[in-house]
Amino acid sequence: MGDFELNNRIRADSHMASVLGLCQLRLMNDRRWPWLLLIPQRPGIEEVFELTPLDQTLLTFETCETARALKRVTHCEKINIGALGNHVRQLHIHVIARNPGDPAWPGPAWAVGNAEPYEPKSAADLIAALIDAL
Amino acid sequence: MGDFELNNRIRADSHMASVLGLCQLRLMNDRRWPWLLLIPQRPGIEEVFELTPLDQTLLTFETCETARALKRVTHCEKINIGALGNHVRQLHIHVIARNPGDPAWPGPAWAVGNAEPYEPKSAADLIAALIDAL
Repeated sequence: MGDFELNNRIRADSHMASVLGLCQLRLMNDRRWPWLLLIPQRPGIEEVFELTPLDQTLLTFETCETARALKRVTHCEKINIGALGNHVRQLHIHVIARNPGDPAWPGPAWAVGNAEPYEPKSAADLIAALIDAL
Repeated sequence: MGDFELNNRIRADSHMASVLGLCQLRLMNDRRWPWLLLIPQRPGIEEVFELTPLDQTLLTFETCETARALKRVTHCEKINIGALGNHVRQLHIHVIARNPGDPAWPGPAWAVGNAEPYEPKSAADLIAALIDAL
């Protein structure tokens, strides 16, 4: 399989936040929604069921902890979690803070309009708050 | 908390397929996509991180087995998994078979057009094939 290498599109569209036990945690560079990505650092994985049972459990733990931290930091109404991968096949889990009145509510946030990048300081502040809450 | 009671909208929009260890497994009554729902039979749960750690692990196991069976039965290009809940707050996990050329590809399948109900026999045949593959 070779080593894990982050997909170039994911790298371009998001900021590195942290490395958890299994996953890279990244912040999508789109200030319309607080939107995180978890990417299991395993090569050649496209579907969650291709992970080993232990990695599946780790992914669930890290997803739940990340979702809880995102809810705590943003006080959002609802967390949306998704593993789609129709464009980018490298397995990645979306964890998105949703609120009534956001640009896609109550529909899904994927494939809606164009990303609006953060000011660098805003992204860094949000990442710091999330790391603190994790 | 009281007993678990299935949300009325989920009940109206889907066919019962099976009861797994934790979840009800249901088929969305929309033949545009083979689309399953997993509903953990726990009262008052809206977010995955509100489940106990054991239930989180069970949900992951049942989600992965369901996704694998759906892929095996449909030979789809990609599985999409999501927990949104912006409309219906009772926790439910979507497991959807996606293919290039389907009515929403490569975008998400949620909130796209109107459901096209199955012929009763088609739904029963798909459920039987899925149960067999589980």
